[in-house]
This record gives sequence, structure tokens and C-alpha cells, in this order.
Amino acid sequence: MRETWVVGAATNRFGKMAETGREAASRVALAAIDSAGLEPKDIEQTFVSNAFGVAERQAHVGPLINTALGIPEVPSVTIESACSSSSAALHEAFVHVAGGFADAALVVGVEKLSHLDTFASTSYFAMGADYAFESRNGATFPGLYATLASAYRREHGSRPEEFGAVAVKNHANAAMNPNAHFQRPITLDTYLGSPIIASPLRLYDCCPFSDGASAIVVAARERLPRPAAEPLVIRASARAGSVADMHDRETLTGLPATRAAGLKAFRMAKVEPAQIDFLEVHDCFTVAEIMALEDLGFFPKGHAGRATVDGVTAHDGRLPVNPSGGLKAKGHPVSATGAAQVVEIFEQFNGHAGGRQVPKTGLALAHNVGATGGSCSVHIFGRR
Amino acid sequence: MRETWVVGAATNRFGKMAETGREAASRVALAAIDSAGLEPKDIEQTFVSNAFGVAERQAHVGPLINTALGIPEVPSVTIESACSSSSAALHEAFVHVAGGFADAALVVGVEKLSHLDTFASTSYFAMGADYAFESRNGATFPGLYATLASAYRREHGSRPEEFGAVAVKNHANAAMNPNAHFQRPITLDTYLGSPIIASPLRLYDCCPFSDGASAIVVAARERLPRPAAEPLVIRASARAGSVADMHDRETLTGLPATRAAGLKAFRMAKVEPAQIDFLEVHDCFTVAEIMALEDLGFFPKGHAGRATVDGVTAHDGRLPVNPSGGLKAKGHPVSATGAAQVVEIFEQFNGHAGGRQVPKTGLALAHNVGATGGSCSVHIFGRR
Repeated sequence: MRETWVVGAATNRFGKMAETGREAASRVALAAIDSAGLEPKDIEQTFVSNAFGVAERQAHVGPLINTALGIPEVPSVTIESACSSSSAALHEAFVHVAGGFADAALVVGVEKLSHLDTFASTSYFAMGADYAFESRNGATFPGLYATLASAYRREHGSRPEEFGAVAVKNHANAAMNPNAHFQRPITLDTYLGSPIIASPLRLYDCCPFSDGASAIVVAARERLPRPAAEPLVIRASARAGSVADMHDRETLTGLPATRAAGLKAFRMAKVEPAQIDFLEVHDCFTVAEIMALEDLGFFPKGHAGRATVDGVTAHDGRLPVNPSGGLKAKGHPVSATGAAQVVEIFEQFNGHAGGRQVPKTGLALAHNVGATGGSCSVHIFGRR
Repeated sequence: MRETWVVGAATNRFGKMAETGREAASRVALAAIDSAGLEPKDIEQTFVSNAFGVAERQAHVGPLINTALGIPEVPSVTIESACSSSSAALHEAFVHVAGGFADAALVVGVEKLSHLDTFASTSYFAMGADYAFESRNGATFPGLYATLASAYRREHGSRPEEFGAVAVKNHANAAMNPNAHFQRPITLDTYLGSPIIASPLRLYDCCPFSDGASAIVVAARERLPRPAAEPLVIRASARAGSVADMHDRETLTGLPATRAAGLKAFRMAKVEPAQIDFLEVHDCFTVAEIMALEDLGFFPKGHAGRATVDGVTAHDGRLPVNPSGGLKAKGHPVSATGAAQVVEIFEQFNGHAGGRQVPKTGLALAHNVGATGGSCSVHIFGRR
């Protein structure tokens, strides 16, 4: 297996895009290739994620992006795994490059749903859940994660302030991220005063619907021995699944797929959680960040909320979590999210994260969940 | 790169499915695993294709299929490349297994659109084309392929009987395929008397909308040294793209992506077209089969129609083409099509093709096109 790097990365500002998904994806892909000091003709495979492209009446978007980049002959494929689509695309790119099937590959994730009304966008999102047993019966993600949040609170007796601390921290980080959807801090009082969406989840427990596009370039070390920016060495690229529908799971206070993917990743990278300097985790709802930190082994079960209240996971804390602002405040354009986590880690490694720069950038982890955990990807990145 | 085999394969009868896509996919996947003499727990990665799963309100279908198979922890991903989705999924499975990232992988393609009306299904299909420049302006695939057919006829002066011979041959083959959508032969008179759909294409130039599911199991030779059935050795797995929208192409009498993928595949397998014993090609419209045979180098430009009239490509001819009945008559459930071509080659290699059995099964080629050729996959299979 060849040593494989992330050598370039770019994102647009998450929120509401005026341009189409294909236009945004092409523009951001070009910026990522530029940041790597490469040209489009160096790309040998394109992996696109655009789970709900049909909302723009467009499937098969890879050839359109490659044509815009001037490389129409390059093979492309679209990779879908609900909200973990572009981390799954990164995994495919990793396998192609590490396995010697390509020297350089492009991963680009994009989603645009803002032209739809809230009912229609919610319906698209809900397709990541189990239609027959969940979404057909009216379940959407706020309700499903509210079920997880209720179970978590019941089991661990945690207080609303612990969930609130996640929201306050991630909004504070996003306020220092010029590409974030929400760029203003909130207070705990704002959190506690916000309306209930699906009990116990309040408005500020929930990530927004965002449009957005993010891209990364993956290359073999031997292809680019002197990269234009400090690369991320892919120390682990691991994925796992779990029972998709929640009513058949043995536990509702954690995600089995996170645990399985995390164990695989730590084994592959030959590191322990204590060695990780900072993380981007999948905080589609505040409880998701808390569960992720526990499932990945960073805190004992029931302790991650308290640690958040204590500032351990602040961008200047002992273990910064979601310095980008996370899905919660940076935004969650479904298929761009996994790639965007890697863009943040790339910016942090290169010292370009401005006010949200974390103190140590030796080893970082990205954790991306599909739906309520039917799928999970964990990547670990280190330095040359 | 490890020697990699197709060790199991199964399909259902194409046409109209009463069950849901996830149910059909799970059932067929289990049959494919059975045919390999394996159990679900032997599968290490699942690659699903289901381009228009949203028509059933279901994205993220991999975890549902894996859960039905009793292997929820196994990672899954959905692969989309319009009508070439499941051959693109096979390519990913090949890369994982040949590269040593998995010992055995499942590829399952499924599509169900028959619960929609024709306008809605046509709209889904058309999303494989370029929305901004083609489908938004009313172009659907019969119209786009009619443009290719007009250009072909004009350049080569070919007669309607040449397109008709493709339809007659493929219906004759499908009549001997118990899994085909259409199981009755047609005559040239029936073809010539059928209504014009998009001039010059008649009803019998066009493949049907079909529901269907097909699955194959890919494994490393060393994982399964004594397979339960005669395996297909994957001699080549190649993909290419081209300018997606037709108005920007240099030629309309062939598909650049087919030529590029074909050249890659022949180079990888180290064989010449003359060594191939039979083929499954992408005949979504009759002209597509003719162009494919020329683009792949089996006949000089303008000669494949005449060869079809002369019986060269009949199932008992010198170079059998689409012994399964092809998309034209076996049916075209978008994301199941690429895998179904491999199912046919597996049955032919194992001598299970009944009345449509081809005389020689040493080397076979599968050719699968995305939309009007924005993507193309070519696989070449040989014997141990």
C-alpha cells in the first residue's frame, strides 16, 4: 500500500448558493487542484458526491464537472452514503491511490437544496433513513436524533446545559470561519431560550440545511514529493455499517458504526485516541458530537458533555473538537460535509485557520456519519 | 495487483417488480452469494447501485441490504454513473479486491420505477443527460439517440433494415432467456411497421423501462481457490468519460468514451478484439449496439449493421453479441444493467444459457454506457 496524501483542499462559503451544484462543484474543484500546485490534467479519477442531485434534476454529474475542468476523458463516479457521502468518496480515492490504480484523484462533494421549500428538503434528507420503517411513518432526522438524545439523557442523567455547551462552542468557532453558514456566537441563554424542535432537542441543537461544495485532492507521495502545501498523510481510512433502522439496535446511547469504524481506524493508524490533537466530528445534532466523542474512545460514556462544559473541546482547549464550527454552525450541505471536514484539517495543518487555529496539529481525526449511523467513516491524518 | 474473479452471479426476471428495490436487491444478492458457495459473512464490502432510489423515497440503501443479509457491520456505498452505475460499482469492487483491500465484495444493482407514470420515469431517466443544456430544453434519451442515429445514417448511408436486424436478433435471444423482460421473437416486418418514437427511431429501436435487480460477487483467487462455479477472471476493468453534452462533441457517429474505455481495456487484458468470443454491449437503442461494435474495434465504421443483417452477431454466429437479449429485449433497469451483463457472461461460461448458449466462451467483453456516453465501462473476462 502506497503512502497517500491529501495535497489540496478548498471549500466555498456554506449557506445559500446562487449558482447550481455543478457550477459550485467545478469552481471549488479547480481551487482544490490549484491549492495542490497541480493542473486538472493531473487528475486520473474523479469521485463526486451529490446525494440529492436529483433535486436539481441532475444525476451523472461527474462528466459535467470533468468537462468544466477540461478533462472530459477522465473517468468519474458518484458516491452516495447519505450524510457520509464525501468521506466515502475519499475512501474510494484512497483505495485507488494507495492501491496504485491512480496517482492523483479528485474528491468533490456538493449539495444544493435551498431552492426547495422546507417540506421538500426535509423529505430529501429523510431518504437517508429507512423508508419502510421510519420515514414513511413520519420520522425525520430531528425526531430520530431526539430519540437518541432522550435515551442518552435518561441513561446518563445529563443536563440541557451539556448539549448547550456544544452549540455555544461550535457557534463560537464558526464565528471565526469565513466559510461558515452561521458566523455569529450564541450564548447559553440563547440556546436555552430557543424553541423545542423535537423534544428534548431545541433549535440550537440542530444543524441547518446548507448549500455548499468542498473538494480535496488525493495523491501518492511519490507523485508529488514536493507538495505546494503541507499535506495530510492519510494514516487511516476506515468505514463500517450498522443496522440502519433504530428500532432494531441494541443501544440508543451511541452509534455502533462509529465504534466499529473508529476501532478499525485506530488499528490501521497504529495510534490511540490520546495521541489525537484535534477532531472534526459529525455533529448534525449536539447529542451526535457527544456520542461521537464517547464512541471513539475520547471520553468515558456519559462524560463528553461535562468535558464540553469545562472547555476541554474548545478550539484552544486540550482536545479541540470541530474548530470549523462543525455541521452545527459551519453548516451541513449533505454531500459536501465529509470533504469539508478534511478541508478544515488541511487549513489547520497549514496554519491558515485564523482565530480558530488549534494549538497542536500533529494528528487529526475526521468522523462522518450517514443518517442515524447506518454508515460511518473515520479518517486519521498525520504529518510527513 | 491480485488476480480477481467473479465467483457468483444472480438476477431476477426483469419487467415489473411487485416488491421494493431493497427487497429485490437483498434477495438477488443472497442468490449471488449462494451461487459462489459463500455466506454473507464472507462479504467485506458492499457496492450498491440504485441511481433513482429516490423514486422509492430511499437513499442510503446499502445498510438496509446488508442488514437484510445479516451483515449490518459491513461497509456499503452506493455508486452512480447513470446507466453504467453497476459496471462502475464492479470497477470499485475490482479495485478493492485486486488492490488487497478486501478479499470478497458484493456488487448489487437495482432499479424500480414502474410505480411511476411514464412522464415521471422519463424525467428520472433524463437526469442522466445534461440538465442545463439538454433535458431542461425537453431532450430525453429517445431524442438524443435519434440524433446519433440520424448522424450515423447520414454518414454511412445505412438502411432501416440494419437497425431492424439488431432488434430482431436481440428479441430472438431474449425469447430464450427466462429472465428477460420481453420473451417473444419479432420479425423485421413487425419492426418496420412499428410507430416512430423519435425519427428515425421506431418503437422496436428502443429498450423498455424495466424494474430489476442483479448481483455479482467478486473475490480474490487466493480467497476462493476452489470456487463453486466456473469463475470469470477479470482480465480488464476500465472506465473513461467524455464530454457529456452532445452539442460539444466532435463526432455523433460513435461514442468517444467507448473508444477510450475499450482501448484501455484491451491494453490491460493484453488482447485484441479478434480474440473475444462474445460480447454484451449497451444497446439502449439499436444504433447504440452498432456504434459500440465499431467503437470497440470489432467492425470498421459503417459495417456493423451489415454484419448484423448477415447473422455474424447472432447467438450462434461468429461473434455473438448480446446473447442475453441485451437492454433492447432483456430490459434495462438502469442500475441493474451493468451487473446483469456480467450475470449473462457468468451463465455462458458455466454452460447454463440454454437455447441461447454461445459456441465459444474463452474470452468475453461487457460494455456499459452512462447516458449518451458521458461515461463508459469496459470489462474483459477470461478463464482460469
